Amino acid sequence: MTRWLSEEEQQTWQAYIRMRQRLDAAIAAGLAEHGLSMADYELMVPLSATPHGCMRAKELVGEVCWDKSRLSKQLARMAARGLVDRRPAEDDARGIVVSLTEEGRAVLGRAAPEHVELVRDLFVDRLTQRESMALRSLSEKVIAMSDDRTSLPG
Amino acid sequence: MTRWLSEEEQQTWQAYIRMRQRLDAAIAAGLAEHGLSMADYELMVPLSATPHGCMRAKELVGEVCWDKSRLSKQLARMAARGLVDRRPAEDDARGIVVSLTEEGRAVLGRAAPEHVELVRDLFVDRLTQRESMALRSLSEKVIAMSDDRTSLPG
Repeated sequence: MTRWLSEEEQQTWQAYIRMRQRLDAAIAAGLAEHGLSMADYELMVPLSATPHGCMRAKELVGEVCWDKSRLSKQLARMAARGLVDRRPAEDDARGIVVSLTEEGRAVLGRAAPEHVELVRDLFVDRLTQRESMALRSLSEKVIAMSDDRTSLPG
Repeated sequence: MTRWLSEEEQQTWQAYIRMRQRLDAAIAAGLAEHGLSMADYELMVPLSATPHGCMRAKELVGEVCWDKSRLSKQLARMAARGLVDRRPAEDDARGIVVSLTEEGRAVLGRAAPEHVELVRDLFVDRLTQRESMALRSLSEKVIAMSDDRTSLPG
């Protein structure tokens, strides 16, 4: 027996979906002005934040919650556009180390200020303290729940 | 001068991003078991809910906040897989009317119960009343703000 959503549950889920749609559309349009997709940006931010300027593909997978195949396709596209470099890990023959190229870092540096202004304007500056706390507590539960599910056998 | 995010603002934005990543990953994996992508599902749900079983492409664009080119590529892929039909609108030579095929409706009918259980398990059943209210009020503000921006001249 499927437990379909009640009217109120449906409204809350739709509130999330609609918010996500608007944020995605606005953010994608903003990044596109710098020739970047949301997927590019999602990978470039953690790469730019590492102390050594590089990161194992394995760690990157954890950052973005993608499967390995999606990550390697996306990295191949970004390497072809000169945004990232990939090289074999020295201590692990099957491992890959990814870094931003100078060009990648420059593009990110140009895109980031406008991106942050947009995120402020649409989201961060709109949040009340109460909404911010609610969002964080909800997020913690969703993350814990989905990590539990992922680690279940089978 | 870019107003970069404070530590606390960054944490709240990251809470949203991480929640979105986990939900996307889990939902995409669930739908993939039925051969559907999130984009497929996003279009199929409003199509299945219309009283006439069909919808103008223009209206669909409004439902998902995609640009026209993304919608028409996605519809072409779905038509090739037998999930939707597209036909010219009778009263508008340039308009397109989209409907689910019988096969599309059958696939959606098989995928939806598991999808809803997943949405419950990861999200809806985790929400407190307070979180639900906060999410709705935030969503309303984000939607109003992004609609305002979209309607700005230029």
